[in-house]
Amino acid sequence: MGLVVQKYGGSSVADAEGIKRVAKRIVEAKKNGHQVVVVVSAMGDTTDELIDLAEQVSPIPSGREFDMLLTAGERISMALLAMAIKNLGHEAQSFTGSQAGVITDSVHNKARIIDVTPGRIRQSIDAGNIAIVAGFQGVSQDKKDITTLGRGGSDTTAVALAAALEAEVCEIYTDVDGVFTADPRVVKKARKIDWISFEDMLELASSGSKVLLHRCVEYARRYNIPIHVRSSFSGLRGTWVSNEPQGDQPMEQAIISGVAHDTSEAKITVVGVPDKPGEAAAIFRTISDSELNIDMVVQNVSAASTGLTDISFTLPKTDGHKAMEALTKAQPTIGFDSLRYDDQIAKISLVGAGMRTNPGVTATFFEALSNAGVNIELISTSEIRISVVTRADDVKEAVRAVHSAFGLDSDSVEAVVYGGTGR
Amino acid sequence: MGLVVQKYGGSSVADAEGIKRVAKRIVEAKKNGHQVVVVVSAMGDTTDELIDLAEQVSPIPSGREFDMLLTAGERISMALLAMAIKNLGHEAQSFTGSQAGVITDSVHNKARIIDVTPGRIRQSIDAGNIAIVAGFQGVSQDKKDITTLGRGGSDTTAVALAAALEAEVCEIYTDVDGVFTADPRVVKKARKIDWISFEDMLELASSGSKVLLHRCVEYARRYNIPIHVRSSFSGLRGTWVSNEPQGDQPMEQAIISGVAHDTSEAKITVVGVPDKPGEAAAIFRTISDSELNIDMVVQNVSAASTGLTDISFTLPKTDGHKAMEALTKAQPTIGFDSLRYDDQIAKISLVGAGMRTNPGVTATFFEALSNAGVNIELISTSEIRISVVTRADDVKEAVRAVHSAFGLDSDSVEAVVYGGTGR
Repeated sequence: MGLVVQKYGGSSVADAEGIKRVAKRIVEAKKNGHQVVVVVSAMGDTTDELIDLAEQVSPIPSGREFDMLLTAGERISMALLAMAIKNLGHEAQSFTGSQAGVITDSVHNKARIIDVTPGRIRQSIDAGNIAIVAGFQGVSQDKKDITTLGRGGSDTTAVALAAALEAEVCEIYTDVDGVFTADPRVVKKARKIDWISFEDMLELASSGSKVLLHRCVEYARRYNIPIHVRSSFSGLRGTWVSNEPQGDQPMEQAIISGVAHDTSEAKITVVGVPDKPGEAAAIFRTISDSELNIDMVVQNVSAASTGLTDISFTLPKTDGHKAMEALTKAQPTIGFDSLRYDDQIAKISLVGAGMRTNPGVTATFFEALSNAGVNIELISTSEIRISVVTRADDVKEAVRAVHSAFGLDSDSVEAVVYGGTGR
Repeated sequence: MGLVVQKYGGSSVADAEGIKRVAKRIVEAKKNGHQVVVVVSAMGDTTDELIDLAEQVSPIPSGREFDMLLTAGERISMALLAMAIKNLGHEAQSFTGSQAGVITDSVHNKARIIDVTPGRIRQSIDAGNIAIVAGFQGVSQDKKDITTLGRGGSDTTAVALAAALEAEVCEIYTDVDGVFTADPRVVKKARKIDWISFEDMLELASSGSKVLLHRCVEYARRYNIPIHVRSSFSGLRGTWVSNEPQGDQPMEQAIISGVAHDTSEAKITVVGVPDKPGEAAAIFRTISDSELNIDMVVQNVSAASTGLTDISFTLPKTDGHKAMEALTKAQPTIGFDSLRYDDQIAKISLVGAGMRTNPGVTATFFEALSNAGVNIELISTSEIRISVVTRADDVKEAVRAVHSAFGLDSDSVEAVVYGGTGR
């Protein structure tokens, strides 16, 4: 029996009852002979309440102080969780990100982990304790200031600790039973995936699946830490994310892992771009200088009569305004005709390593959309993914049609969503 | 213009409005040319809410985890206060007790400060920042665990930092205008004291005055740090506590500093103690072995006929049960007749260095009580204090009578109480 890292999100520890329930689950793992390290998020709405307080005090809170403020949330949940475990007759010690050795860069509000030096955690578990660690937070290497890791930070803390402690598995407890073949709120017959490769999971995450964030999966892949995504409300086996199937997992991966969708992006089309070398480069240099991330990029063949082409790309809606501003400013230099902005789009993606060797996949995908009467506006493909952009209004129908066409529908309704999501 | 340490209690930063008000006051001090270090308590009821959560999770919370939990409160208030100051165009940085170099022993929930190494604070203020420090908390020297300082901990943090940074003054902001000649809620004509010596303040604090705790005054006296107790709600000059009057303070101290009262104690009488050497020692060894603190001790002369005497002492009501238990258990060994427990008592104390050289003080004191029809049950005196125990019901009348007899009454009502008290 080796070391297990468990991570519990805010919805799992939303109140005293939740904390006591989680404490029992942790003690079970300890009783089964594991060394246990637990990463915990702030309780339920704590973070939102703290953000609200900050906004009352200052319209633009300082990054350093904002991080100091937010990290109070995990301090509360981890101390309470340690108390609840001790109340069950087991020894537990809580540690801040700094005490746990989570060393980051100095970019407040979205720091990156540079190193993990979990000496105190190792010492604590070797002494027989259950170690409780604050998720989402670290300490900056140069200034020794408190930092936070941004969205999905607690998952990343868990995977990073699992890597540094050479854990057997990193268990991510959430409010759904695992990773599904599609969003269960859209596709009632979505199936829980038993095992999925890091690569497919990365594609799902970057295509709109919200169970695990890209950053956390990337970290797990780099250090080869198996992730087990499961529910803290049920006792069911969830989804394993790893290089190779493990134990009693199915040995062969399905052709298609799942269908993801994303309605958080907008589309910008640059109309009438002279079709000559350097034009696309000038456009995307403008975007990247504004520190904006783009997703899909599509360029149509130019019309022979005019020698002009259109370039379309998608990016997070929240960055849309900034991108339009930057491009408008650069219009005289770059020399295009006009800009079109559209935030009523959806992206639907089909992900699966099997599609590499199954040429029929693309055809089946487009046929399914066509039969459902869904019009395709952009297409982009990778080795293990096909993505299309459609109207936002069509997204549910499109996802259901594709899910069904690839035989992913379960015979019964499997998916249960238990609550909100933590950070 | 030198360095000033300011301390704000929980009632001063109870909400966003309070935090913004305090931020303005801090910026004023900075504008006046001072280097400013601020010690802040948790917002209003935060601590009580956290204690409530802990009780829901565990009936007997662990000391280490309880401290981790409670210290989240100051983390929130200090970050918000720093944001509010930055919003006024001044630079501020917040620091936890650990970051500020407040090193303590390992006694959780009531740790004692061993050392203060404020290197980061010094660096921050020398760079032009206002430094905000979490009160009430530190880090243990041996285990590097988070500790809390117990009751009045934030005041002690402020004085300790003032000492380590060699501050000009430690300003304690509270919800009253200063230290009064009696509790203004009891004596409407109580006068604000302009200056009081450390010694008199120590006696007042240990006699029931709640504005400053004994521990904080003791620390200030040891390092000779002047304390200025004042209101965060008004702009008035408050009370200076120091070795010698400073600046425009009155040069001669009044004969009597003030009248304090305390209704938090109980009286235990050990009846029928054999009047022979070692008996009193056996009784108080029993008490001290139970780690209980006692206050007044009085032994009457023994009745010649029986050779037995009675020993009475007072102690905090909260320790009463434990003391009775310990003494009952030791009764066969010590050999007294019986125990009497009485928690309907009050202690009234008159404090003033002047009474050393004014023999009439004691007589005036007893006459005042007698004229008011107040019966005296125990008497205890020191060089600069006389204390008596009376019935709890008589306390207000007793305090008013003594206050008036020593000419302390103000011509007008001066005292204003603005709110609750922080920690």
